Amino acid sequence: MSDSTSTLNIRWAATLIQSLANCGVEHAVLSPGSRCTPLTLACDAYLQTHIIVDERAAAFYALGLAKATEKPIVLVCTSGTAAANWCPAVVEASYGRAPLLLLTADRPPELQGIGANQTIDQVKLFGSFVRAYHGLPPATETILATLPTLAARSVEQSLWPLPGPVHINVPFREPLHPAVSELDLPKLRLEHKQSDALHTSAHPILHPDTILLNKILNSIQGKSGLIVCGALPYQFELAAAISKLAIALNCPILADPLSNLRCGKHPLDNILCHYDAWITPQILESLKPHWLLRFGTVPVSKRLQQSLVAVQPPVQIIVNADGIWPDPDHSATMMVRADLKIFCEQLTAHLGANLFKGAQCTAYKLEQIAITAFKDQPISLEWAILQQLLQRLPDRSALLIGNSMPIRDLDSCMMKSSKPLRIHANRGASGIDGLVSTLAGLAAGNCRVRTAHHSNSRICTAHHKEGAQCAPYVVGVIGDLALFHDLNGLYTLQGLNVILIVINNGGGGIFRYLSQTQLPNFERNWLTPTNLNIQQAAALFNLNYQTATCPQTFITALDIALNNSGTQLIEIIVDANLSVAQHKNYWHTVAELAAR
Amino acid sequence: MSDSTSTLNIRWAATLIQSLANCGVEHAVLSPGSRCTPLTLACDAYLQTHIIVDERAAAFYALGLAKATEKPIVLVCTSGTAAANWCPAVVEASYGRAPLLLLTADRPPELQGIGANQTIDQVKLFGSFVRAYHGLPPATETILATLPTLAARSVEQSLWPLPGPVHINVPFREPLHPAVSELDLPKLRLEHKQSDALHTSAHPILHPDTILLNKILNSIQGKSGLIVCGALPYQFELAAAISKLAIALNCPILADPLSNLRCGKHPLDNILCHYDAWITPQILESLKPHWLLRFGTVPVSKRLQQSLVAVQPPVQIIVNADGIWPDPDHSATMMVRADLKIFCEQLTAHLGANLFKGAQCTAYKLEQIAITAFKDQPISLEWAILQQLLQRLPDRSALLIGNSMPIRDLDSCMMKSSKPLRIHANRGASGIDGLVSTLAGLAAGNCRVRTAHHSNSRICTAHHKEGAQCAPYVVGVIGDLALFHDLNGLYTLQGLNVILIVINNGGGGIFRYLSQTQLPNFERNWLTPTNLNIQQAAALFNLNYQTATCPQTFITALDIALNNSGTQLIEIIVDANLSVAQHKNYWHTVAELAAR
Repeated sequence: MSDSTSTLNIRWAATLIQSLANCGVEHAVLSPGSRCTPLTLACDAYLQTHIIVDERAAAFYALGLAKATEKPIVLVCTSGTAAANWCPAVVEASYGRAPLLLLTADRPPELQGIGANQTIDQVKLFGSFVRAYHGLPPATETILATLPTLAARSVEQSLWPLPGPVHINVPFREPLHPAVSELDLPKLRLEHKQSDALHTSAHPILHPDTILLNKILNSIQGKSGLIVCGALPYQFELAAAISKLAIALNCPILADPLSNLRCGKHPLDNILCHYDAWITPQILESLKPHWLLRFGTVPVSKRLQQSLVAVQPPVQIIVNADGIWPDPDHSATMMVRADLKIFCEQLTAHLGANLFKGAQCTAYKLEQIAITAFKDQPISLEWAILQQLLQRLPDRSALLIGNSMPIRDLDSCMMKSSKPLRIHANRGASGIDGLVSTLAGLAAGNCRVRTAHHSNSRICTAHHKEGAQCAPYVVGVIGDLALFHDLNGLYTLQGLNVILIVINNGGGGIFRYLSQTQLPNFERNWLTPTNLNIQQAAALFNLNYQTATCPQTFITALDIALNNSGTQLIEIIVDANLSVAQHKNYWHTVAELAAR
Repeated sequence: MSDSTSTLNIRWAATLIQSLANCGVEHAVLSPGSRCTPLTLACDAYLQTHIIVDERAAAFYALGLAKATEKPIVLVCTSGTAAANWCPAVVEASYGRAPLLLLTADRPPELQGIGANQTIDQVKLFGSFVRAYHGLPPATETILATLPTLAARSVEQSLWPLPGPVHINVPFREPLHPAVSELDLPKLRLEHKQSDALHTSAHPILHPDTILLNKILNSIQGKSGLIVCGALPYQFELAAAISKLAIALNCPILADPLSNLRCGKHPLDNILCHYDAWITPQILESLKPHWLLRFGTVPVSKRLQQSLVAVQPPVQIIVNADGIWPDPDHSATMMVRADLKIFCEQLTAHLGANLFKGAQCTAYKLEQIAITAFKDQPISLEWAILQQLLQRLPDRSALLIGNSMPIRDLDSCMMKSSKPLRIHANRGASGIDGLVSTLAGLAAGNCRVRTAHHSNSRICTAHHKEGAQCAPYVVGVIGDLALFHDLNGLYTLQGLNVILIVINNGGGGIFRYLSQTQLPNFERNWLTPTNLNIQQAAALFNLNYQTATCPQTFITALDIALNNSGTQLIEIIVDANLSVAQHKNYWHTVAELAAR
């Protein structure tokens, strides 16, 4: 007995979505549309769904959910330009290694290329930015039974070996869905639960071999060196393994704020946070590093990168498990593919007695100079509020730090601390787009949901990885241009409990540090202040709003925000020129003290 | 003597941009960024520039400019996700046949794929949505002299044979630009003006041959038939040629609102506008059409399309010059590639005395019934305000009509008139995205610029095609979800003189007419009302705001808007259920009268 088109469509969608759920998928982010109706119905039946009207915002929201839950997030939209609005977030997810399952509804093949309404070429729409593309045929009984495998394969491709987006294009013929009287999703659910096996894929652990470890030890043991860490997963065991290796090797760790090494319960002794202030080619040269171990992505600090390029330690080893090649200087001498934690633990275990004795006391001394300089002079408002924020946030809070200036400000002023905080950023492509929506997704993924508006479930489904818990607070720090770029994201924040701190420095503040500042029409063409009234923007979306113009008013505002529910927007009004002068003055002071 | 990298970068960009200017390009839309600095400098020197922070809005703004000026518009952005934000507008421009020149700044090849900041794979970023992709190498003296040809070729590819976007990826090495003291753009301008020949490409006129015309005449002359017109260019001569052919053939023209046939100084005798209300398979069958001539894209009316599919006249000829295949029903019996105006004129000239005598008097009678029914009962607020708007707009005003409900409402209620009005829409992919920004670009392209904010020139540069003039008014009519989707676009409207009419029917009103209205969670998953406070949104961007809840208050608001400068937002608050009932009642009345 063959089903009608409408019944087949819904069975097709239900099988696909329930199979994804069987593989561990929990959340779907949907934008409204007609063609995607079978997918919408199925997602609503089997997953926790979130409705976001603007597809660009929806995709960044899904990115935030993926970051929070470390599981693949389903995205659903209708045919046409809807999916094209996902592009920015798909690019970010691709380079930022976030698992997304991109389900685009489509018209069937017979309506392609002949002027049918809302029909575009969705085949391989996301080009090289997806790990896999699966073009489904319109719903058919013949291969319905293969959908669970496709789902399992898609989930794996989104997670392994390199997490990222996977695109499944799903054409539907009309009529799209059965009449409501014939729509029995619970029944479908039951049938499929019985018939489908749970698909799990088991991924190998990449063990370094002993010959390799000995070879590395021979080239680094007893010699002066540095560990440099970019963005790394938020895992206590990993942080501990790296820290212990550094202690055993008697070397400093230059730890990017996204390394998740600057704060936590792991040993912090060898962690250096302020190298961006003190490092120069001359100083690095004086440290005579013989070797470099690089973990994670490329750090934010441009001064660190430039110093490393200038000095070029003879042994430069990158350890990375997922096949990326984070070496923009073209200076790596060895690329080691291994699980980072195991690599560090085994290298530590293999270390002999021949330890480097000199230690990098110069580096620690310089670090101390940089820390002291913070206390000896007025620091910028941005740095002051970031320091206050880090001090006041409770354990395990999640912080999303914006691109352009905020991440650089955090890099400059974030001290090490035994308080675990999880720092997130969109550093895959480092755009200023989509940050408000990413923050919203991060909050939803941490169960900071107030109303049923964005989610059909208010209960924390313990969807975090084993041992992890929801963050008690989710906070974002972004610039005014990033806020403007994702203004629609504020709408999504309405139904959540989030603190959004907007540093208003009147446009693209980073350009004040770049050579463009001297060019004709600098303000019009590069700085581009929007003069957006942020208080009115907050009011438009019913968000609580406070303003701060000094550390004291910020502390007051933050305390109020921490003690209230609903989304709290705090605007920090910065005197951009003063701030540039203070930063330059700080760097000058550190340089002077370092030269003594 | 070889230049330094910085000087070479600026010469490279200046040569490219000035060459584009030599080929007739006048406008560039720029978003701020560092990597694109040489392009920004060059555009500011040689073109009229517009600065838009949000790249998604910038690309739709460029689309509007292209629609207004019918010339290729340069878009410039920096590397990373910036260009990915262009995707929705690029897709629309591709299917909507708008010429865009997409200039993406990029990092050089040695920084690709190795974790360099803000570096993504921009090669063929826009996939099948561009007419051509040109991947430039980093600036080099060797082939600098070939850039004028590349520019000329790109301009041609954006215009002929099928207008659309062309992508030029432009990598730059650091340092990106010379010191301001060495930056002599006027000098560069002079040098290049002297050395570069003006490039023009001459495009053929597609003449139909006599044998073909006779063959067509043999199959249609003396027999009952219909001309069906979708979107067509806004050209008086074309409208006149089609109208005269219809008169000669003694057949009605079913004219879509985007055909630009419903109003103008051409003969209007045979134009039918209200077929969406009266056409059914039965009625079409009773007209016994032997042949169909289809011009332009596929019309908006779904009832027309469904009736044509059901009836299938034996001769169905599509005449189209640019190689698209607008036949979603798979029913064309002949695809004629010819210039439409010439085809109509020559077919008219070849017509013998054997004319169809019966005429389609039934069709004209039904049309009159539909017109009478408008007067006999209360029509919906949307239809009433659209009719008032069309009556009150001065000659040659430009109207951008939104997707989803507004275009269908216009289709239903737009009467024919001898007043020339130019109707625009984004019907390439029919998205609800980017409409506010498209409107802004349309206004800028019609010189409705108030301040220097968005444009470095306030003077109308007579950039319209010969004989065309700037529209005295630029008006947009969109729904509340479209407004929400492109909220950032309101920022751009600040510096312009535009009237934006927002029909607020509380979400995706079109779904109230579709089967989804019966589904569980209809409001949450399909209707998705945002409850955006549109008055506050207008205030956020300093726009004049009025509201209307009936035709009378609308007339007052419109008169105020027409007599004031600055952007005027008029919110129409619609009782969506009443409106659906009124529309259904109208269709029912027409059907009853038609059946008598």
